[in-house]
Amino acid sequence: MKGIAASPGIAIGKVLIKKDFQIKIEKKNIDNIEDEIKRLNKAIKVSKQQIDSLYQHTLENIGQEEAKIFEAHIMILDDPEYFGQVEEKIKTEKINAEHALKQVTDKFLEIFQNMDNEYMKERAADIKDVSNRVIRELLGIETIDLSKLDEAVIIVAKDLTPSDTAQMDKEKVLGFITEIGGKTAHSAIMARTLELPAVVGVEGITKKVKNKDIVILDGEEGIVIINPDKETLKEYKDKKEEYQKYKNKLKQLKGRESITKDGFKVELVANIGTPKDVEGVIRNDAEGVGLYRTEFLYMDRKSLPTEEEQFSAYKEVAEKLKGKPVVIRTLDIGGDKDLPYLELPKEMNPFLGYRAIRLCLDRTEIFKTQLRALLRASIYGNIKIMFPMISSIEELRQAKQILEEVKEDLRKENIKFNEEIEVGMMIEIPSAAIMSDILAKEVDFFSIGTNDLIQYITAVDRGNRKISYLYSQYHPALLRLIKQVIDNGHKEGIWIGMCGEAAGDPKLIPILIGMGLDEFSMSPISILRARWIITNIEQKKMKKLAQHVLNLPTAEEVEKFIDENISIE
Amino acid sequence: MKGIAASPGIAIGKVLIKKDFQIKIEKKNIDNIEDEIKRLNKAIKVSKQQIDSLYQHTLENIGQEEAKIFEAHIMILDDPEYFGQVEEKIKTEKINAEHALKQVTDKFLEIFQNMDNEYMKERAADIKDVSNRVIRELLGIETIDLSKLDEAVIIVAKDLTPSDTAQMDKEKVLGFITEIGGKTAHSAIMARTLELPAVVGVEGITKKVKNKDIVILDGEEGIVIINPDKETLKEYKDKKEEYQKYKNKLKQLKGRESITKDGFKVELVANIGTPKDVEGVIRNDAEGVGLYRTEFLYMDRKSLPTEEEQFSAYKEVAEKLKGKPVVIRTLDIGGDKDLPYLELPKEMNPFLGYRAIRLCLDRTEIFKTQLRALLRASIYGNIKIMFPMISSIEELRQAKQILEEVKEDLRKENIKFNEEIEVGMMIEIPSAAIMSDILAKEVDFFSIGTNDLIQYITAVDRGNRKISYLYSQYHPALLRLIKQVIDNGHKEGIWIGMCGEAAGDPKLIPILIGMGLDEFSMSPISILRARWIITNIEQKKMKKLAQHVLNLPTAEEVEKFIDENISIE
Repeated sequence: MKGIAASPGIAIGKVLIKKDFQIKIEKKNIDNIEDEIKRLNKAIKVSKQQIDSLYQHTLENIGQEEAKIFEAHIMILDDPEYFGQVEEKIKTEKINAEHALKQVTDKFLEIFQNMDNEYMKERAADIKDVSNRVIRELLGIETIDLSKLDEAVIIVAKDLTPSDTAQMDKEKVLGFITEIGGKTAHSAIMARTLELPAVVGVEGITKKVKNKDIVILDGEEGIVIINPDKETLKEYKDKKEEYQKYKNKLKQLKGRESITKDGFKVELVANIGTPKDVEGVIRNDAEGVGLYRTEFLYMDRKSLPTEEEQFSAYKEVAEKLKGKPVVIRTLDIGGDKDLPYLELPKEMNPFLGYRAIRLCLDRTEIFKTQLRALLRASIYGNIKIMFPMISSIEELRQAKQILEEVKEDLRKENIKFNEEIEVGMMIEIPSAAIMSDILAKEVDFFSIGTNDLIQYITAVDRGNRKISYLYSQYHPALLRLIKQVIDNGHKEGIWIGMCGEAAGDPKLIPILIGMGLDEFSMSPISILRARWIITNIEQKKMKKLAQHVLNLPTAEEVEKFIDENISIE
Repeated sequence: MKGIAASPGIAIGKVLIKKDFQIKIEKKNIDNIEDEIKRLNKAIKVSKQQIDSLYQHTLENIGQEEAKIFEAHIMILDDPEYFGQVEEKIKTEKINAEHALKQVTDKFLEIFQNMDNEYMKERAADIKDVSNRVIRELLGIETIDLSKLDEAVIIVAKDLTPSDTAQMDKEKVLGFITEIGGKTAHSAIMARTLELPAVVGVEGITKKVKNKDIVILDGEEGIVIINPDKETLKEYKDKKEEYQKYKNKLKQLKGRESITKDGFKVELVANIGTPKDVEGVIRNDAEGVGLYRTEFLYMDRKSLPTEEEQFSAYKEVAEKLKGKPVVIRTLDIGGDKDLPYLELPKEMNPFLGYRAIRLCLDRTEIFKTQLRALLRASIYGNIKIMFPMISSIEELRQAKQILEEVKEDLRKENIKFNEEIEVGMMIEIPSAAIMSDILAKEVDFFSIGTNDLIQYITAVDRGNRKISYLYSQYHPALLRLIKQVIDNGHKEGIWIGMCGEAAGDPKLIPILIGMGLDEFSMSPISILRARWIITNIEQKKMKKLAQHVLNLPTAEEVEKFIDENISIE
């Protein structure tokens, strides 16, 4: 059976089906409203304790970013609007808590699911996860505890919730297969973080297998084989071994330089969201941080983070990286990433709206606080400041002007900072790419943000499924702009990085090497694979291929050309 | 006093203040619900008759596009949801119709006005206009009838509704001044259509003047002078005369070629929305139609237009233009321009969404019907087909493939069409501009749509006021892309037009001439001014200026450079 390759690796083992429990919720009339509400509140309380412990478990075993999801769950449980409506229903309709909760949940789900937007759909999944937990609690149902398995298994399920994946014990779970989900679904992301092979989107798999069936799961090709014959089993065992060898080979690259066979040296750095992520950066031997997204500091809270809170986060990252570069992007909020306490206007097209540097240049008090914290932290390591969403040189100049003001304030207060701190900008808006010759004269570096750049050059919201076929990182228009930005930057003697998904794409890395990109910033787990690729190619050869690619007419032909002309064992 | 120059020309005359009538609507309890609803329905009926007559008046005296607004008003009166809620309120709360209507209206207005979107705000203005009419009717209030003035006056008002401007008699209204509104507000657009001088956005003007005061209104500079002294009066009388001379000079350009002093000939063509607009095209001596927006055929109705309806519209335009070129753009719907009967998905970022060619390539039955109608009409004149929102060559090829299929069908049915019909595409998505060297090989022409192109290259929704300062047609990134598109097109021997607002901008026309643009499509009323400019410049000189502009860093400097280096009397 064919599915979507969600996380690489091969697993061979016994199936454990995680059944979707179909709970029938009956409507009952109740007499004692007060007792029913008490019962509801007790179930909420127990659920909260469970989620708290999942949060702790995830935080310790997986990472802070992954744990955030349970903070979101607790926020849902704390939402007075949501459970207020449930209580109201119990009171006015005199019905049982389960049924009231189900009705309110369904109403919320309908709203969220009808939005053609990935982010909202994920919120829907969270609400469902939380309400199922409370309903199970109300009904006294227990489910398979994935953290207490007797033997190693391959989990097969319709879908896996964050609660499921957080419980998984890596020693006992060999991999998983789900019916629902794409490459960017929560379960797929978790699989990659846990380094578990996974195939998602395998329609009907829960009905095709029984518990204890033997399956082969190929997370590279997206293939699932049920009860394979001897030959196939042998073939995949060999493949698995080979994959293990490959992974070992990667491990041996730790501590090595990222340099091509003919001596072109680049920097392989990582994208992070919180200081906790630094662990993964170090474990995977990244040469620094190419993108520290500071948004998480501002999210899931009720007011702006103070200068001290920010300072200590930036300082922690700078110190842990011990002098390695740490590129910190100033606040990129607004648009789809809303902060309720900022009371931002509702927008018709948030991706073309008031966000990031636009917001910071307008609400300078927010911006100045962040810049102060950044500058103060700059003496604890090698911090560089990066501005997002610059569309014109005026904005860059304004941002730099404000930075100068903050520096001047600090000087007056005798507070130390790195006077030589590098200042750069994202190239993620087409006009910035087109004007990069002029912009390059006024910054120390560029970092190309391909995710947004593709959206704008193709006029495609990548969260919009109906047109996602038009969104491609192999679009020749993107590659042409990238080349132009690199050339323009080099003419002015600055270095050029990339922090969009393209920077970690094994197919694009050789092309980007050919174009002369200096810095590649990606998910920490992709670092060693990227180093493997880079150390096995010659830049001279890649230059020619990159030049050829720029004249191809379609994304499809670009991808095909790369597949046919570049192969790295 | 200073305001926003909304429509050029100078008016000198007596003030007539159109008071905002402040109606106090009291809440009354009523006994006979049935009578109250009858009263409401009678007021609705009378209002409908009034609007009908305004519609007829506008249609005959102004134009079909302007008349559309009253069709929208009638749709509001016919909306069962809206007046259904009013009736419901009368029934359940037993209150008078005026008060019920006011409450429901306020609720609707709140929703619309909170949307940070020009289109929705205009819908709010419509609802207000309609409900005020019905309330006036219910209360028996009569207002100044602007179509029956005794002497020529300058109207001063807080704001003018479509109902107001539609009534204006051009013989009796010299111009108008309003407190509210920007350059794209309804009243400003109407002023330009009626060729009446107007200044909008003059704060406090209704309180600063009295009826019969003499005012000078300078619609070019956005200046209002109240009770001027003799000297000033003399100065403006001279200015007015000069403006009249200039207008006469323009009239003399009718029938002349659009050619620079050194012999570079271009085509000056017009943007239209409906066959009715052709009148203005001919009156202003445009050399054809550079953009026929076919959306209006699909709007304000309950189902798709039939092939016959479309055929007769396209045929009418082609015939009236008597062999002059008519570039017809295929359906550009979706995004912000929704058609309820298509049941399009709600999108997070409609400007980056499922629209125009994306929709047509997905719902080919809609596309094929339009292409059939276009091809059938092609034998009645010089029709060219243009595809909107192309972002990749695959889409262009698909669209052309479908066109071939439709042609083949027609051949089989022995239906005639122009076998040599030209096929082109809009360049309004950055990736298309960047790939224009390759796209140019597969079309007969390009037309650059600057309005959308600016939005995408700067990532700015131009309807979003908070960031509209970033949207500029002088952005050097835009000018660079335009140059690139023109050069790429010319290398392949195709002609390049432009149908965004930049094409009609007196400041940009010389620069575009310098870049070698072949066709300029604009509002019909801008044609003669453009011809005046073109016939007074030398392309050779403009080439140098255009080259210089491409190296300027900011939109501000581009505009300043043009102002300082190009002046046309």
